[in-house]
Amino acid sequence: VTTITLTAVPNFPHIKPGDDVAHLLLDALNQGGMPLQNGDVLALAHKVISKAEGRQVNLSAVLPSQRACDIAEQVGKDPRLVELILQESEEVSRMKPGVLIVRHRLGFTSANAGIDRSNVHQDLGQETVLLLPLDPDASAVRLRETIREELDVEVGILIVDSHGRPFRLGTVGVAIGVAGLPSLWDRRGESDLYGYRLEHTEVGTADEVAAAASLLMGQAAEGTPIILIRGLNLPAAHGKASDLIRPKSMDLYRPEP
Amino acid sequence: VTTITLTAVPNFPHIKPGDDVAHLLLDALNQGGMPLQNGDVLALAHKVISKAEGRQVNLSAVLPSQRACDIAEQVGKDPRLVELILQESEEVSRMKPGVLIVRHRLGFTSANAGIDRSNVHQDLGQETVLLLPLDPDASAVRLRETIREELDVEVGILIVDSHGRPFRLGTVGVAIGVAGLPSLWDRRGESDLYGYRLEHTEVGTADEVAAAASLLMGQAAEGTPIILIRGLNLPAAHGKASDLIRPKSMDLYRPEP
Repeated sequence: VTTITLTAVPNFPHIKPGDDVAHLLLDALNQGGMPLQNGDVLALAHKVISKAEGRQVNLSAVLPSQRACDIAEQVGKDPRLVELILQESEEVSRMKPGVLIVRHRLGFTSANAGIDRSNVHQDLGQETVLLLPLDPDASAVRLRETIREELDVEVGILIVDSHGRPFRLGTVGVAIGVAGLPSLWDRRGESDLYGYRLEHTEVGTADEVAAAASLLMGQAAEGTPIILIRGLNLPAAHGKASDLIRPKSMDLYRPEP
Repeated sequence: VTTITLTAVPNFPHIKPGDDVAHLLLDALNQGGMPLQNGDVLALAHKVISKAEGRQVNLSAVLPSQRACDIAEQVGKDPRLVELILQESEEVSRMKPGVLIVRHRLGFTSANAGIDRSNVHQDLGQETVLLLPLDPDASAVRLRETIREELDVEVGILIVDSHGRPFRLGTVGVAIGVAGLPSLWDRRGESDLYGYRLEHTEVGTADEVAAAASLLMGQAAEGTPIILIRGLNLPAAHGKASDLIRPKSMDLYRPEP
Protein backbone atom coordinates (compact mmCIF):
# COMPACT_ATOMS: atom_id res chain seq x y z
CA VAL A 1 0.00 0.00 0.00
CA THR A 2 1.28 3.42 -0.98
CA THR A 3 0.66 6.05 1.69
CA ILE A 4 1.70 9.65 2.19
CA THR A 5 1.41 11.18 5.64
CA LEU A 6 1.52 14.85 6.54
CA THR A 7 2.03 15.78 10.17
CA ALA A 8 2.09 19.21 11.74
CA VAL A 9 5.23 19.70 13.86
CA PRO A 10 3.98 20.86 17.25
CA ASN A 11 5.41 23.60 19.43
CA PHE A 12 7.41 25.50 16.85
CA PRO A 13 8.16 28.85 18.47
CA HIS A 14 7.36 32.30 17.15
CA ILE A 15 10.34 33.52 15.16
CA LYS A 16 12.25 36.74 15.72
CA PRO A 17 14.82 38.38 13.42
CA GLY A 18 18.12 36.55 13.60
CA ASP A 19 16.66 33.31 14.96
CA ASP A 20 18.32 30.08 13.86
CA VAL A 21 15.39 28.39 12.12
CA ALA A 22 17.27 25.14 11.44
CA HIS A 23 18.08 24.45 15.06
CA LEU A 24 14.69 25.60 16.34
CA LEU A 25 13.18 23.19 13.83
CA LEU A 26 15.38 20.31 14.97
CA ASP A 27 14.47 21.09 18.59
CA ALA A 28 10.75 21.05 17.77
CA LEU A 29 11.08 17.73 15.94
CA ASN A 30 12.97 16.31 18.90
CA GLN A 31 10.42 17.51 21.40
CA GLY A 32 7.62 16.18 19.21
CA GLY A 33 9.23 12.74 19.04
CA MET A 34 9.48 13.01 15.26
CA PRO A 35 12.85 11.65 14.10
CA LEU A 36 13.59 12.48 10.48
CA GLN A 37 14.15 9.81 7.85
CA ASN A 38 15.81 9.92 4.45
CA GLY A 39 13.25 11.07 1.89
CA ASP A 40 11.18 13.11 4.33
CA VAL A 41 10.13 16.54 3.20
CA LEU A 42 9.72 19.48 5.56
CA ALA A 43 7.41 22.25 4.38
CA LEU A 44 7.77 25.65 6.08
CA ALA A 45 5.42 28.61 5.91
CA HIS A 46 7.43 31.36 4.23
CA LYS A 47 6.80 33.71 7.13
CA VAL A 48 9.12 31.63 9.30
CA ILE A 49 12.00 32.42 6.95
CA SER A 50 10.99 36.05 6.37
CA LYS A 51 10.77 36.73 10.08
CA ALA A 52 14.17 35.18 10.78
CA GLU A 53 15.66 37.23 7.95
CA GLY A 54 14.27 40.43 9.44
CA ARG A 55 12.09 41.19 6.42
CA GLN A 56 9.65 43.20 8.54
CA VAL A 57 9.16 46.77 7.31
CA ASN A 58 7.44 49.47 9.32
CA LEU A 59 5.08 51.25 6.96
CA SER A 60 5.68 54.56 8.73
CA ALA A 61 9.27 54.47 7.41
CA VAL A 62 8.21 54.10 3.76
CA LEU A 63 8.13 57.17 1.50
CA PRO A 64 5.97 56.39 -1.54
CA SER A 65 7.08 57.50 -5.00
CA GLN A 66 4.78 59.37 -7.36
CA ARG A 67 4.22 56.18 -9.34
CA ALA A 68 3.26 54.34 -6.15
CA CYS A 69 0.81 57.13 -5.26
CA ASP A 70 -0.75 56.98 -8.73
CA ILE A 71 -1.19 53.21 -8.63
CA ALA A 72 -2.39 53.35 -5.02
CA GLU A 73 -5.17 55.67 -6.08
CA GLN A 74 -6.15 53.39 -8.98
CA VAL A 75 -6.27 50.23 -6.87
CA GLY A 76 -7.39 51.80 -3.60
CA LYS A 77 -4.46 50.67 -1.47
CA ASP A 78 -2.11 52.37 0.98
CA PRO A 79 0.57 54.19 -1.11
CA ARG A 80 3.31 53.02 1.26
CA LEU A 81 2.23 49.42 0.76
CA VAL A 82 2.16 49.95 -3.01
CA GLU A 83 5.67 51.44 -2.85
CA LEU A 84 6.95 48.26 -1.17
CA ILE A 85 5.07 46.08 -3.66
CA LEU A 86 6.68 47.94 -6.57
CA GLN A 87 10.13 47.75 -4.98
CA GLU A 88 9.71 43.99 -4.68
CA SER A 89 8.44 43.55 -8.25
CA GLU A 90 9.74 43.74 -11.77
CA GLU A 91 6.45 44.63 -13.43
CA VAL A 92 2.74 45.05 -12.91
CA SER A 93 0.74 42.21 -14.46
CA ARG A 94 -2.78 43.54 -13.94
CA MET A 95 -4.51 46.01 -11.68
CA LYS A 96 -8.02 47.17 -10.91
CA PRO A 97 -9.70 48.57 -7.83
CA GLY A 98 -8.76 46.32 -4.92
CA VAL A 99 -6.33 44.17 -6.94
CA LEU A 100 -2.65 44.62 -7.76
CA ILE A 101 -1.06 41.62 -9.44
CA VAL A 102 2.67 41.84 -10.07
CA ARG A 103 5.57 39.77 -11.24
CA HIS A 104 7.79 39.55 -8.17
CA ARG A 105 11.55 40.01 -8.56
CA LEU A 106 11.80 36.24 -7.88
CA GLY A 107 9.54 35.57 -10.88
CA PHE A 108 6.28 34.66 -9.14
CA THR A 109 3.18 36.36 -10.47
CA SER A 110 0.79 36.93 -7.58
CA ALA A 111 -1.18 39.57 -5.71
CA ASN A 112 0.74 42.31 -3.89
CA ALA A 113 4.18 40.67 -4.25
CA GLY A 114 3.31 38.48 -1.30
CA ILE A 115 2.97 41.58 0.91
CA ASP A 116 -0.53 41.95 2.18
CA ARG A 117 -2.70 43.62 4.72
CA SER A 118 -2.87 40.11 6.13
CA ASN A 119 0.72 40.71 7.12
CA VAL A 120 0.03 43.86 9.06
CA HIS A 121 0.75 43.08 12.65
CA GLN A 122 -2.14 44.52 14.61
CA ASP A 123 -1.05 43.30 18.03
CA LEU A 124 1.89 45.63 18.36
CA GLY A 125 -0.17 48.64 17.38
CA GLN A 126 2.24 49.41 14.57
CA GLU A 127 1.86 48.86 10.88
CA THR A 128 4.57 46.35 10.14
CA VAL A 129 4.39 44.34 6.94
CA LEU A 130 6.44 41.29 6.08
CA LEU A 131 8.19 40.88 2.73
CA LEU A 132 8.93 37.51 1.12
CA PRO A 133 12.29 35.89 1.98
CA LEU A 134 15.27 37.32 0.09
CA ASP A 135 16.21 34.09 -1.67
CA PRO A 136 13.97 31.23 -0.57
CA ASP A 137 15.70 28.65 -2.78
CA ALA A 138 19.00 29.45 -1.06
CA SER A 139 17.33 29.38 2.37
CA ALA A 140 15.92 25.94 1.57
CA VAL A 141 19.35 24.65 0.53
CA ARG A 142 20.98 25.96 3.73
CA LEU A 143 18.30 24.39 5.89
CA ARG A 144 18.67 21.05 4.12
CA GLU A 145 22.44 21.15 4.54
CA THR A 146 22.27 21.96 8.24
CA ILE A 147 19.89 19.05 8.78
CA ARG A 148 22.20 16.73 6.88
CA GLU A 149 25.19 17.88 8.92
CA GLU A 150 23.37 17.53 12.23
CA LEU A 151 21.42 14.30 11.66
CA ASP A 152 23.00 12.65 8.62
CA VAL A 153 19.63 12.40 6.83
CA GLU A 154 18.72 13.56 3.35
CA VAL A 155 15.48 15.50 3.48
CA GLY A 156 13.67 17.78 1.09
CA ILE A 157 12.77 21.34 2.08
CA LEU A 158 9.86 23.38 0.77
CA ILE A 159 9.15 27.02 1.55
CA VAL A 160 5.46 27.64 0.95
CA ASP A 161 3.40 30.70 0.08
CA SER A 162 -0.28 30.91 -0.91
CA HIS A 163 -1.16 32.32 -4.31
CA GLY A 164 -4.42 33.20 -5.99
CA ARG A 165 -5.00 31.91 -9.50
CA PRO A 166 -5.99 33.83 -12.63
CA PHE A 167 -8.86 31.52 -13.57
CA ARG A 168 -9.82 29.94 -10.28
CA LEU A 169 -10.99 31.29 -6.95
CA GLY A 170 -9.27 30.56 -3.67
CA THR A 171 -5.61 30.57 -2.77
CA VAL A 172 -3.48 27.43 -2.86
CA GLY A 173 -0.10 26.65 -1.39
CA VAL A 174 2.81 26.90 -3.84
CA ALA A 175 6.52 26.31 -3.51
CA ILE A 176 8.64 29.47 -3.41
CA GLY A 177 11.75 27.69 -2.13
CA VAL A 178 12.84 24.13 -2.88
CA ALA A 179 15.80 21.93 -1.97
CA GLY A 180 16.36 18.20 -2.19
CA LEU A 181 13.29 17.23 -4.19
CA PRO A 182 12.16 17.71 -7.79
CA SER A 183 10.19 20.87 -8.57
CA LEU A 184 9.04 19.56 -11.91
CA TRP A 185 8.71 15.87 -12.60
CA ASP A 186 8.86 15.06 -16.27
CA ARG A 187 6.64 12.07 -16.86
CA ARG A 188 6.43 12.37 -20.62
CA GLY A 189 6.71 9.04 -22.27
CA GLU A 190 5.27 7.09 -19.35
CA SER A 191 1.97 5.31 -19.74
CA ASP A 192 -0.91 6.23 -17.53
CA LEU A 193 -3.46 4.00 -15.89
CA TYR A 194 -5.28 3.18 -19.10
CA GLY A 195 -2.25 2.59 -21.23
CA TYR A 196 -2.54 6.05 -22.73
CA ARG A 197 0.76 7.64 -23.56
CA LEU A 198 1.43 10.77 -21.58
CA GLU A 199 2.69 13.68 -23.63
CA HIS A 200 2.30 16.96 -21.77
CA THR A 201 2.80 15.74 -18.28
CA GLU A 202 5.54 17.67 -16.66
CA VAL A 203 4.06 17.68 -13.18
CA GLY A 204 4.53 20.60 -10.76
CA THR A 205 5.41 18.18 -7.99
CA ALA A 206 6.79 20.73 -5.53
CA ASP A 207 3.63 22.82 -5.89
CA GLU A 208 1.46 19.76 -5.29
CA VAL A 209 3.38 19.00 -2.10
CA ALA A 210 3.12 22.66 -1.06
CA ALA A 211 -0.65 22.59 -1.59
CA ALA A 212 -0.91 19.42 0.49
CA ALA A 213 1.16 20.93 3.32
CA SER A 214 -0.89 24.09 3.19
CA LEU A 215 -3.97 22.07 4.19
CA LEU A 216 -2.42 21.58 7.63
CA MET A 217 -0.57 24.85 8.09
CA GLY A 218 -3.47 27.07 9.02
CA GLN A 219 -5.60 24.72 11.02
CA ALA A 220 -4.48 25.00 14.63
CA ALA A 221 -5.53 28.13 16.52
CA GLU A 222 -2.03 29.53 16.54
CA GLY A 223 -1.06 27.93 13.24
CA THR A 224 1.41 25.16 12.53
CA PRO A 225 4.01 26.58 10.17
CA ILE A 226 6.05 23.38 9.81
CA ILE A 227 4.69 20.20 8.21
CA LEU A 228 6.55 16.88 7.98
CA ILE A 229 5.66 14.85 4.88
CA ARG A 230 6.60 11.19 4.61
CA GLY A 231 6.11 8.59 1.89
CA LEU A 232 6.31 10.83 -1.16
CA ASN A 233 8.65 8.40 -2.90
CA LEU A 234 9.88 11.05 -5.32
CA PRO A 235 12.76 10.55 -7.73
CA ALA A 236 16.13 11.85 -6.52
CA ALA A 237 16.41 15.33 -7.99
CA HIS A 238 17.41 18.78 -6.85
CA GLY A 239 14.83 21.19 -8.14
CA LYS A 240 14.52 24.86 -7.36
CA ALA A 241 11.37 26.91 -6.97
CA SER A 242 12.65 29.04 -9.82
CA ASP A 243 12.21 25.99 -12.09
CA LEU A 244 8.47 26.47 -11.59
CA ILE A 245 8.43 30.01 -12.99
CA ARG A 246 7.00 30.13 -16.49
CA PRO A 247 9.50 32.07 -18.61
CA LYS A 248 8.15 35.26 -20.15
CA SER A 249 8.65 33.75 -23.60
CA MET A 250 6.14 31.01 -22.68
CA ASP A 251 3.67 33.36 -20.98
CA LEU A 252 0.50 33.95 -23.02
CA TYR A 253 -0.98 36.31 -20.40
CA ARG A 254 1.66 39.06 -20.45
CA PRO A 255 1.06 42.54 -19.02
CA GLU A 256 -1.22 44.67 -21.13
CA PRO A 257 0.67 47.37 -23.01
CA VAL B 1 -0.76 15.68 16.68
CA THR B 2 -2.59 16.64 13.50
CA THR B 3 -1.99 14.21 10.65
CA ILE B 4 -3.41 13.76 7.18
CA THR B 5 -2.91 10.43 5.42
CA LEU B 6 -3.37 9.71 1.73
CA THR B 7 -3.56 6.09 0.65
CA ALA B 8 -3.86 4.69 -2.85
CA VAL B 9 -6.76 2.23 -3.09
CA PRO B 10 -5.27 -0.93 -4.62
CA ASN B 11 -6.76 -3.13 -7.31
CA PHE B 12 -9.28 -0.75 -8.76
CA PRO B 13 -10.25 -2.27 -12.11
CA HIS B 14 -10.04 -0.71 -15.56
CA ILE B 15 -13.36 0.95 -16.27
CA LYS B 16 -15.58 0.31 -19.28
CA PRO B 17 -18.58 2.32 -20.46
CA GLY B 18 -21.59 1.66 -18.24
CA ASP B 19 -19.59 0.32 -15.30
CA ASP B 20 -20.95 1.06 -11.82
CA VAL B 21 -18.06 3.07 -10.39
CA ALA B 22 -19.59 3.36 -6.90
CA HIS B 23 -19.86 -0.37 -6.35
CA LEU B 24 -16.52 -1.14 -7.98
CA LEU B 25 -15.03 1.42 -5.60
CA LEU B 26 -16.70 -0.12 -2.57
CA ASP B 27 -15.47 -3.56 -3.67
CA ALA B 28 -11.90 -2.29 -4.01
CA LEU B 29 -12.03 -0.67 -0.57
CA ASN B 30 -13.36 -3.91 0.86
CA GLN B 31 -10.70 -6.03 -0.80
CA GLY B 32 -8.03 -3.56 0.33
CA GLY B 33 -9.21 -3.76 3.93
CA MET B 34 -9.93 -0.02 3.94
CA PRO B 35 -13.22 0.63 5.79
CA LEU B 36 -14.50 4.18 5.25
CA GLN B 37 -15.02 6.58 8.15
CA ASN B 38 -17.08 9.75 8.45
CA GLY B 39 -15.01 12.67 7.17
CA ASP B 40 -12.93 10.59 4.75
CA VAL B 41 -12.46 12.02 1.29
CA LEU B 42 -12.15 9.87 -1.83
CA ALA B 43 -10.36 11.46 -4.77
CA LEU B 44 -10.94 9.90 -8.20
CA ALA B 45 -9.01 10.52 -11.40
CA HIS B 46 -11.54 12.04 -13.79
CA LYS B 47 -10.87 9.35 -16.37
CA VAL B 48 -12.64 6.82 -14.17
CA ILE B 49 -15.86 8.82 -14.46
CA SER B 50 -15.38 9.70 -18.14
CA LYS B 51 -14.81 6.07 -19.08
CA ALA B 52 -17.87 4.87 -17.20
CA GLU B 53 -19.95 7.59 -18.88
CA GLY B 54 -18.80 6.45 -22.29
CA ARG B 55 -17.08 9.75 -23.11
CA GLN B 56 -14.69 8.05 -25.53
CA VAL B 57 -14.78 9.51 -29.04
CA ASN B 58 -13.19 7.87 -32.04
CA LEU B 59 -11.37 10.60 -33.96
CA SER B 60 -12.16 8.92 -37.27
CA ALA B 61 -15.83 9.76 -36.69
CA VAL B 62 -15.18 13.50 -36.21
CA LEU B 63 -15.75 15.89 -39.12
CA PRO B 64 -13.90 19.14 -38.40
CA SER B 65 -15.56 22.49 -39.14
CA GLN B 66 -13.81 25.19 -41.12
CA ARG B 67 -13.08 27.09 -37.90
CA ALA B 68 -11.53 23.97 -36.38
CA CYS B 69 -9.38 23.53 -39.49
CA ASP B 70 -8.22 27.15 -39.31
CA ILE B 71 -7.31 26.92 -35.63
CA ALA B 72 -5.72 23.51 -36.15
CA GLU B 73 -3.40 25.03 -38.71
CA GLN B 74 -2.48 27.92 -36.38
CA VAL B 75 -1.73 25.69 -33.41
CA GLY B 76 -0.44 22.65 -35.29
CA LYS B 77 -2.91 20.12 -33.97
CA ASP B 78 -5.15 17.48 -35.52
CA PRO B 79 -8.27 19.30 -36.88
CA ARG B 80 -10.53 16.55 -35.55
CA LEU B 81 -9.08 17.01 -32.06
CA VAL B 82 -9.53 20.78 -32.36
CA GLU B 83 -13.15 20.25 -33.43
CA LEU B 84 -13.82 18.27 -30.25
CA ILE B 85 -12.00 20.88 -28.14
CA LEU B 86 -14.16 23.64 -29.62
CA GLN B 87 -17.34 21.61 -29.12
CA GLU B 88 -16.41 21.19 -25.46
CA SER B 89 -15.54 24.87 -24.95
CA GLU B 90 -17.28 28.19 -24.76
CA GLU B 91 -14.35 30.30 -25.92
CA VAL B 92 -10.67 30.27 -26.82
CA SER B 93 -8.55 31.93 -24.13
CA ARG B 94 -5.17 31.92 -25.92
CA MET B 95 -3.52 30.03 -28.73
CA LYS B 96 -0.12 29.78 -30.33
CA PRO B 97 1.73 26.99 -32.11
CA GLY B 98 1.44 23.90 -29.95
CA VAL B 99 -0.91 25.48 -27.41
CA LEU B 100 -4.70 25.84 -27.36
CA ILE B 101 -6.10 27.17 -24.09
CA VAL B 102 -9.88 27.32 -23.82
CA ARG B 103 -12.60 28.01 -21.35
CA HIS B 104 -14.40 24.68 -21.05
CA ARG B 105 -18.21 24.63 -21.05
CA LEU B 106 -17.90 23.72 -17.34
CA GLY B 107 -15.94 26.96 -16.75
CA PHE B 108 -12.42 25.58 -16.34
CA THR B 109 -9.74 27.39 -18.32
CA SER B 110 -7.11 24.86 -19.35
CA ALA B 111 -5.28 23.38 -22.32
CA ASN B 112 -7.29 21.46 -24.90
CA ALA B 113 -10.52 21.31 -22.85
CA GLY B 114 -9.04 18.38 -20.98
CA ILE B 115 -8.82 16.39 -24.22
CA ASP B 116 -5.27 15.61 -25.08
CA ARG B 117 -3.01 13.44 -27.14
CA SER B 118 -2.26 11.88 -23.75
CA ASN B 119 -5.76 10.47 -23.99
CA VAL B 120 -5.23 8.78 -27.31
CA HIS B 121 -5.39 5.08 -26.67
CA GLN B 122 -2.51 3.57 -28.56
CA ASP B 123 -3.01 0.00 -27.47
CA LEU B 124 -6.15 -0.59 -29.46
CA GLY B 125 -4.62 0.81 -32.60
CA GLN B 126 -7.41 3.31 -32.92
CA GLU B 127 -7.42 7.00 -32.19
CA THR B 128 -9.86 7.27 -29.34
CA VAL B 129 -9.83 10.36 -27.16
CA LEU B 130 -11.58 10.81 -23.85
CA LEU B 131 -13.67 13.89 -23.03
CA LEU B 132 -14.17 15.23 -19.51
CA PRO B 133 -17.18 13.88 -17.57
CA LEU B 134 -20.51 15.45 -18.51
CA ASP B 135 -21.24 16.92 -15.08
CA PRO B 136 -18.54 15.97 -12.58
CA ASP B 137 -20.19 17.82 -9.66
CA ALA B 138 -23.32 15.74 -10.18
CA SER B 139 -21.26 12.55 -10.52
CA ALA B 140 -19.54 13.36 -7.23
CA VAL B 141 -22.88 13.88 -5.47
CA ARG B 142 -24.26 10.58 -6.78
CA LEU B 143 -21.17 8.70 -5.68
CA ARG B 144 -21.32 10.24 -2.22
CA GLU B 145 -25.01 9.35 -1.90
CA THR B 146 -24.50 5.75 -2.96
CA ILE B 147 -21.73 5.37 -0.39
CA ARG B 148 -23.95 6.84 2.31
CA GLU B 149 -26.78 4.49 1.39
CA GLU B 150 -24.55 1.43 1.32
CA LEU B 151 -22.29 2.09 4.30
CA ASP B 152 -24.01 4.83 6.33
CA VAL B 153 -20.87 7.00 6.29
CA GLU B 154 -20.55 10.64 5.26
CA VAL B 155 -17.57 11.01 2.94
CA GLY B 156 -16.36 13.70 0.61
CA ILE B 157 -15.81 13.02 -3.09
CA LEU B 158 -13.35 14.79 -5.37
CA ILE B 159 -13.01 14.28 -9.11
CA VAL B 160 -9.54 15.36 -10.14
CA ASP B 161 -7.99 16.65 -13.35
CA SER B 162 -4.51 18.09 -13.93
CA HIS B 163 -4.22 21.64 -15.22
CA GLY B 164 -1.32 23.75 -16.36
CA ARG B 165 -1.01 27.25 -14.93
CA PRO B 166 -0.65 30.56 -16.77
CA PHE B 167 2.36 31.74 -14.75
CA ARG B 168 3.89 28.53 -13.50
CA LEU B 169 5.27 25.45 -15.20
CA GLY B 170 4.06 21.95 -14.48
CA THR B 171 0.56 20.60 -14.10
CA VAL B 172 -1.16 20.26 -10.73
CA GLY B 173 -4.21 18.33 -9.64
CA VAL B 174 -7.39 20.42 -9.39
CA ALA B 175 -10.95 19.59 -8.39
CA ILE B 176 -13.42 19.38 -11.29
CA GLY B 177 -16.10 17.61 -9.23
CA VAL B 178 -16.81 18.06 -5.51
CA ALA B 179 -19.35 16.67 -3.05
CA GLY B 180 -19.45 16.65 0.73
CA LEU B 181 -16.55 18.98 1.45
CA PRO B 182 -15.92 22.71 1.06
CA SER B 183 -14.47 23.88 -2.24
CA LEU B 184 -13.56 27.27 -0.87
CA TRP B 185 -12.85 27.82 2.80
CA ASP B 186 -13.35 31.40 3.83
CA ARG B 187 -10.86 32.13 6.58
CA ARG B 188 -11.13 35.89 6.49
CA GLY B 189 -11.19 37.32 9.93
CA GLU B 190 -9.16 34.52 11.49
CA SER B 191 -5.73 35.24 12.88
CA ASP B 192 -2.75 33.45 11.47
CA LEU B 193 0.24 32.05 13.25
CA TYR B 194 1.75 35.39 14.10
CA GLY B 195 -1.42 37.09 15.18
CA TYR B 196 -1.73 38.82 11.82
CA ARG B 197 -5.29 39.29 10.71
CA LEU B 198 -6.10 37.41 7.54
CA GLU B 199 -7.94 39.44 4.94
CA HIS B 200 -7.77 37.81 1.55
CA THR B 201 -7.72 34.22 2.56
CA GLU B 202 -10.45 32.35 0.88
CA VAL B 203 -8.59 29.08 0.47
CA GLY B 204 -9.13 26.77 -2.51
CA THR B 205 -9.36 23.79 -0.19
CA ALA B 206 -10.75 21.29 -2.70
CA ASP B 207 -7.94 22.15 -5.11
CA GLU B 208 -5.34 21.67 -2.39
CA VAL B 209 -6.77 18.24 -1.61
CA ALA B 210 -6.84 17.42 -5.33
CA ALA B 211 -3.18 18.42 -5.68
CA ALA B 212 -2.29 16.24 -2.70
CA ALA B 213 -4.16 13.25 -4.12
CA SER B 214 -2.56 13.79 -7.50
CA LEU B 215 0.85 13.08 -5.93
CA LEU B 216 -0.21 9.45 -5.47
CA MET B 217 -2.38 8.92 -8.53
CA GLY B 218 0.29 8.48 -11.11
CA GLN B 219 2.94 6.66 -9.18
CA ALA B 220 2.25 2.96 -9.54
CA ALA B 221 3.12 1.37 -12.88
CA GLU B 222 -0.52 0.93 -13.85
CA GLY B 223 -1.66 4.01 -11.95
CA THR B 224 -3.83 4.28 -8.87
CA PRO B 225 -6.86 6.35 -9.82
CA ILE B 226 -8.52 6.32 -6.38
CA ILE B 227 -6.97 7.92 -3.30
CA LEU B 228 -8.41 7.75 0.22
CA ILE B 229 -7.66 10.84 2.32
CA ARG B 230 -8.15 10.82 6.07
CA GLY B 231 -7.65 13.44 8.78
CA LEU B 232 -8.50 16.55 6.77
CA ASN B 233 -10.71 17.86 9.57
CA LEU B 234 -12.54 20.23 7.24
CA PRO B 235 -15.62 22.23 8.23
CA ALA B 236 -18.94 20.67 7.27
CA ALA B 237 -19.84 22.25 3.95
CA HIS B 238 -21.12 21.16 0.59
CA GLY B 239 -19.02 22.87 -2.04
CA LYS B 240 -19.10 22.32 -5.76
CA ALA B 241 -16.20 22.44 -8.19
CA SER B 242 -18.08 25.19 -9.97
CA ASP B 243 -17.53 27.35 -6.86
CA LEU B 244 -13.85 27.37 -7.81
CA ILE B 245 -14.42 28.92 -11.23
CA ARG B 246 -13.44 32.58 -11.31
CA PRO B 247 -16.39 34.46 -12.80
CA LYS B 248 -15.65 36.30 -16.02
CA SER B 249 -16.35 39.59 -14.24
CA MET B 250 -13.42 38.87 -11.89
CA ASP B 251 -11.09 37.59 -14.61
CA LEU B 252 -8.28 40.03 -15.43
CA TYR B 253 -6.82 37.76 -18.13
CA ARG B 254 -9.77 37.59 -20.52
CA PRO B 255 -9.44 36.44 -24.14
CA GLU B 256 -7.71 38.92 -26.40
CA PRO B 257 -10.13 40.69 -28.72
